[in-house]
Amino acid sequence: MAETAKNPVQRKTLEERSQMGDLERLRHSCAHVLAAAVLRIWPDAQLDIGPPTEEGYYYDFDLASHRFTPADFERIEAEMKKIVKENQRFEKRNLSREEAGELIRTQGQKYKIERLADIPEGEEISFFQNGEFIDLCAGPHVMRTGNTKAFKLLRVAAAYYRGSEKNQQLQRIYGTAFPKRAQLEEWLEAQEEAKRRDHRKIGKDMQLFAFDNDVGPGLPLWLPKGTVLIEELEKLARETEFEAGYLRVRTPHLAKESLYRTSGHLPYYAESMFPPMELKDDGEETAEDGDSGKEPVKYYLKAMNCPHHHKIFSAVPRSYRDLPMRLAEYGCCYRYEQSGELMGLMRVRSMQMNDAHIYCTTEQFADEFKAVNEMYLKYFSIFGFGKYRMRFSTHDPAKLGDKYVDESELWLKTEDMVRQVLDDSGIDYVEVADEAAFYGPKIDVQVGSISGREFTIATNQVDFAVPKRFGLEYRTSGNVWETPLCIHRAPLGTHERFIAFLNTLPGIFRYGLPLNRSGCCPSVLMLWMKVLP
Amino acid sequence: MAETAKNPVQRKTLEERSQMGDLERLRHSCAHVLAAAVLRIWPDAQLDIGPPTEEGYYYDFDLASHRFTPADFERIEAEMKKIVKENQRFEKRNLSREEAGELIRTQGQKYKIERLADIPEGEEISFFQNGEFIDLCAGPHVMRTGNTKAFKLLRVAAAYYRGSEKNQQLQRIYGTAFPKRAQLEEWLEAQEEAKRRDHRKIGKDMQLFAFDNDVGPGLPLWLPKGTVLIEELEKLARETEFEAGYLRVRTPHLAKESLYRTSGHLPYYAESMFPPMELKDDGEETAEDGDSGKEPVKYYLKAMNCPHHHKIFSAVPRSYRDLPMRLAEYGCCYRYEQSGELMGLMRVRSMQMNDAHIYCTTEQFADEFKAVNEMYLKYFSIFGFGKYRMRFSTHDPAKLGDKYVDESELWLKTEDMVRQVLDDSGIDYVEVADEAAFYGPKIDVQVGSISGREFTIATNQVDFAVPKRFGLEYRTSGNVWETPLCIHRAPLGTHERFIAFLNTLPGIFRYGLPLNRSGCCPSVLMLWMKVLP
Repeated sequence: MAETAKNPVQRKTLEERSQMGDLERLRHSCAHVLAAAVLRIWPDAQLDIGPPTEEGYYYDFDLASHRFTPADFERIEAEMKKIVKENQRFEKRNLSREEAGELIRTQGQKYKIERLADIPEGEEISFFQNGEFIDLCAGPHVMRTGNTKAFKLLRVAAAYYRGSEKNQQLQRIYGTAFPKRAQLEEWLEAQEEAKRRDHRKIGKDMQLFAFDNDVGPGLPLWLPKGTVLIEELEKLARETEFEAGYLRVRTPHLAKESLYRTSGHLPYYAESMFPPMELKDDGEETAEDGDSGKEPVKYYLKAMNCPHHHKIFSAVPRSYRDLPMRLAEYGCCYRYEQSGELMGLMRVRSMQMNDAHIYCTTEQFADEFKAVNEMYLKYFSIFGFGKYRMRFSTHDPAKLGDKYVDESELWLKTEDMVRQVLDDSGIDYVEVADEAAFYGPKIDVQVGSISGREFTIATNQVDFAVPKRFGLEYRTSGNVWETPLCIHRAPLGTHERFIAFLNTLPGIFRYGLPLNRSGCCPSVLMLWMKVLP
Repeated sequence: MAETAKNPVQRKTLEERSQMGDLERLRHSCAHVLAAAVLRIWPDAQLDIGPPTEEGYYYDFDLASHRFTPADFERIEAEMKKIVKENQRFEKRNLSREEAGELIRTQGQKYKIERLADIPEGEEISFFQNGEFIDLCAGPHVMRTGNTKAFKLLRVAAAYYRGSEKNQQLQRIYGTAFPKRAQLEEWLEAQEEAKRRDHRKIGKDMQLFAFDNDVGPGLPLWLPKGTVLIEELEKLARETEFEAGYLRVRTPHLAKESLYRTSGHLPYYAESMFPPMELKDDGEETAEDGDSGKEPVKYYLKAMNCPHHHKIFSAVPRSYRDLPMRLAEYGCCYRYEQSGELMGLMRVRSMQMNDAHIYCTTEQFADEFKAVNEMYLKYFSIFGFGKYRMRFSTHDPAKLGDKYVDESELWLKTEDMVRQVLDDSGIDYVEVADEAAFYGPKIDVQVGSISGREFTIATNQVDFAVPKRFGLEYRTSGNVWETPLCIHRAPLGTHERFIAFLNTLPGIFRYGLPLNRSGCCPSVLMLWMKVLP
């Protein structure tokens, strides 16, 4: 598995934005209603920004005189209802930079001054006003505050100004809004159901896994019943991959700094990796009792398996007869997720990944890629994943040599092949320009959870850059050395996220696991499948 | 698996010493002959010590004017032969501390001055003389230099004075000696055979595993054919343990410092662990977008699985109905072996261990311990390990509360039970007083390699101290809380060492592995067994 989106909520494409436009516009307007209500109650509140989100919207406040709690919601919501009832028009006003600055200074809004400075020279500077409330804002908005009546405040949280812990901490109020009350109620009910189905709660109740403060956050301990799930998943993967001609390998969980410099993870990915261990003694095997160069060497836990697999490819001289070579491992990787990004099994610091790398010639590529895609579909059908969407990310020809490896022909050719495979399979997919990985086009599989959030559960990526960096080569039938293509694939993603996700499917986990004291049931997953609709 | 001896060459018991006495005496005398010969050729050589070893002996020299190489052996051996021919008597002389000091100063031997200072007040100070050579030495020795005629010098190596890298580096010459020339020749031939069978060479030739300088020394990459061996071993262990009522768990490879403080690994075992990773952000899950206590926290790779298994035991309230609870994991551990200690797969820095911890009541202990021992014997019979020896290490009653946990009755009782199990099984074992672990008696299984060296391949340990430190408890049928006993066991040791060892058995590896490109043969180990005599 290679690069995955850092944030579980994927950025939207322009196309997606226009599809989502109406709901986002409504929610963004409701954020203004929230801010207007807060200012009526606490006129000294300093405002930052209030964007729409996937679940609704938020607004960030700096308010020294009061610390928001959910106990304030009734009072704020009552004020918001008044504003809704007043049915104020949202009116747009374009100002010059000077006028804008003066207006904001009159308001005494210090964060808005900085936000104004962010707007590039020459771009439109606009404000939106509803009633007495005037906010620096690019819009768009709904017509009137009366349109935002189906709203609810959800929770409060702390948030650093501009997301940096070096800055002032603000108070964030989250809320949501829908066009109709019935939709709001349906959504709230789904949230309640999601809470009942929360894999963290179920995992604890069913003794599947545990977190321990002495071990560390994001590092799950798999209890016996949870280990049954893991081992059954692995068994399924092993058997499926065995039939598909994969070879299994096993690699250590750490390596020297130099490996990750070759792969390019360092320095670009460094902040997502655990900090290094500095070894004074690099343990050279040659000197039996003493002398070895004692330069300290940094070792890093691996965040991905690819560099190790490349080393296995290059450990032995390879010929065209060895290709396609499919190296598979349920490899354990470590990522240094920040506070607040951790979330039960959905986002962890140690993850076991159904990983493999396929080394092949360009002639073999289409067949291999197609076979991988079919394996994805097979798994999704086994587990009853009905609702998923593939995102096919391609390059931007204008950024070759900069954001993308400079192989114009190879990009076009592999993207065509990938598109062909997707078209042939009849899969619902969306193509997104300028979101490929540095080294090649990719497909992310997005699955929606019961609460409506979308997560990347699996990826399938083409790589025509890194094999070259590692000097990977095979001898062709014409007896010359060539560099193979590499496909990174992880159809079951990580154990952790996959198992958390199973719980969002109807039926699963409700029936309990048929595990008795003397051992584990070898077909737990099979039984699950039976309880699926 | 818990504590194992740091050095693959186990310390000898007194009983073993007296058994080995004749050969060690001969070799020690030959070390004197070596030193005498070196002094004849390089009179300015400073001498340190020259003890017998498992394979022969060595002598450490400080010699600024010359750097020893194997090219010197002919010349040194010729001088040694002269001394043998001179058939000098080894004569012992006791001196007072003052006389001894004066003699050494006359000789100009600065290291011997420090060695003299090591001898405690009141202890005998003796020298041994053969010909012109006089050495501070406790003896004993053979009668004459003529007894040491079947000798050979083996290799040179660098060695720090007193083993500390802070000290001066000395030149060490290794040699061996036997009572008869035929024995020496037989031993040399076994060394040659061992070289041919060197698992490092075979592993490379057969593409089983590889080491890579960018990954790091002691961190094996398992190629597809080697992974077949691993997976077959694991399959055997899983099936065997499933039948024996074990539950499988899976735990992360690292944990916070505090876990290892509770277990006692820190600070006592710190130098065998990888250096810590210092996390600025401990990733507390509670704060969604911001505030968490930002104290840096140290995380360590695990050197043993026990602390994590204890946490799984305590993750859920346990009752007497849950016991015996047998938690098994092919857990991966990391140990920071020093330069020169690394040796192919025999001594690595990352190791996959056939580990389990059995939590039981004192009433259940004997049955559990017996079952574990029988599992060991079953494995040894499967793999044709005919020659092994069990070392049963017990406590010293005089050191209770100091070197050993202060539970006199429990020590005697469990040692009796262990002894009974060993006696009943008819296993060849040696009992060794004052070599138990801090927390309980243990059994180490020693296997001899083809070159005659002995390695610990598996351990079985009782632990009645650490469960208390972790606050492990179960509710008895009488509804009170009690602390369980814990058995640490690892009958197949580590993958790495076990697979390296298979190669020392006749036949194995000679026949190659029945692996084809399309996948792995599911019964490679079965096939191995058939080729065994």
